[in-house]
Amino acid sequence: MNLKKAAAEKAVEAIKDGMCIGLGTGSTAYWAIQRIGERVRDGLKIEAVATSVASEELAVQLGIPIVPFENITRLDITIDGADEVNPELHLIKGGGGALLREKIVAANTDYFIVVADENKAVDTLGSFALPVEVVPFASEWTKRRLEASCPDVQWRLKDGVKYITDNGNYIADCRYGEINDPAALEAILNSIPGVVDNGLFVGMADKIIIAKSDGELDIRVK
Amino acid sequence: MNLKKAAAEKAVEAIKDGMCIGLGTGSTAYWAIQRIGERVRDGLKIEAVATSVASEELAVQLGIPIVPFENITRLDITIDGADEVNPELHLIKGGGGALLREKIVAANTDYFIVVADENKAVDTLGSFALPVEVVPFASEWTKRRLEASCPDVQWRLKDGVKYITDNGNYIADCRYGEINDPAALEAILNSIPGVVDNGLFVGMADKIIIAKSDGELDIRVK
Repeated sequence: MNLKKAAAEKAVEAIKDGMCIGLGTGSTAYWAIQRIGERVRDGLKIEAVATSVASEELAVQLGIPIVPFENITRLDITIDGADEVNPELHLIKGGGGALLREKIVAANTDYFIVVADENKAVDTLGSFALPVEVVPFASEWTKRRLEASCPDVQWRLKDGVKYITDNGNYIADCRYGEINDPAALEAILNSIPGVVDNGLFVGMADKIIIAKSDGELDIRVK
Repeated sequence: MNLKKAAAEKAVEAIKDGMCIGLGTGSTAYWAIQRIGERVRDGLKIEAVATSVASEELAVQLGIPIVPFENITRLDITIDGADEVNPELHLIKGGGGALLREKIVAANTDYFIVVADENKAVDTLGSFALPVEVVPFASEWTKRRLEASCPDVQWRLKDGVKYITDNGNYIADCRYGEINDPAALEAILNSIPGVVDNGLFVGMADKIIIAKSDGELDIRVK
């Protein structure tokens, strides 16, 4: 049984006619988009925006009406995956490098649903390296500032050179081990000049659907 | 008498042999760079980085040794102008559009000296529009978030189209009128996904030199 598919299909049940929907990115969001496509074929009337080119292309293939961001003012529901979720519904996202777009979309959504399989559920965030988006200008200085709070900061690489985000920035993967106060860490990171944003999503998720290996869904609501 | 020149020349007195210096941008920083150039011709041994192409070109013309950012770890002194300064040494900067670079340089400086003429000195920040650097993706959404805290938000334009910063972003000029708690506002702005940084420099200036029209210098130290 496909755990991600089960969680994603449960999330899609919340979508109703007339809504504006945010489409996430990644392997769990993939299943949500597939299911939304089925419902659109069955007559569901929605508009959607996508957080990545890959998700947009998939949506278009499936006949989901994609609209430009500037055409809408707010999203009713966004469904996206996460790299780690904790019991307080805080998240780490951005392993795929699209953290800033995903965060902007989530921040402008009335009801943000996160779908994940159970190996993403942790008691304390931080085993997964926290991605931090950094402007290229004087980036080694900014990295040094990050190292003041994190023992292990590595530039994300692709084909041996620094990975470049959709926004033209670098990603510093910061392995904290344990993040005991995600809100405090997020404020510290956002106050560093040169940091564009970071993969902590604190207080943003309204509902988390976790698919367990026994086939049950663990649903957490804010 | 040139007020900006008088303040800038006073600031340059703090520079000593062996230092790494940050060169600001704008009409007051211009006079500081000129004076540094004279002192270099007289034998001062320093290295410098510049916050803009214009300042770098001027420095090179004057024989000031410019080094790449990655070659140094920290700056001893940076001298830069400001658009507004208050009695607590907080600043608004970025009227010229280089706020992010100027802020990164200031944040990595041991002793940050601000030079200004007296019409930049205010009791309360906020008459000058606060520049906020915004990523282009879904930027109208981010502008709407800014409007939640500011009555007058305007995209900065150049030749009728949105001004693009050195980092490829937009500038939203936010006219607050009065900013009574700069630290709180800075934290709010930096927490908005899509905001890269803003022109509030809170607690960053170590010394402010204000040239008054009577020819006196008003020197404020943290």
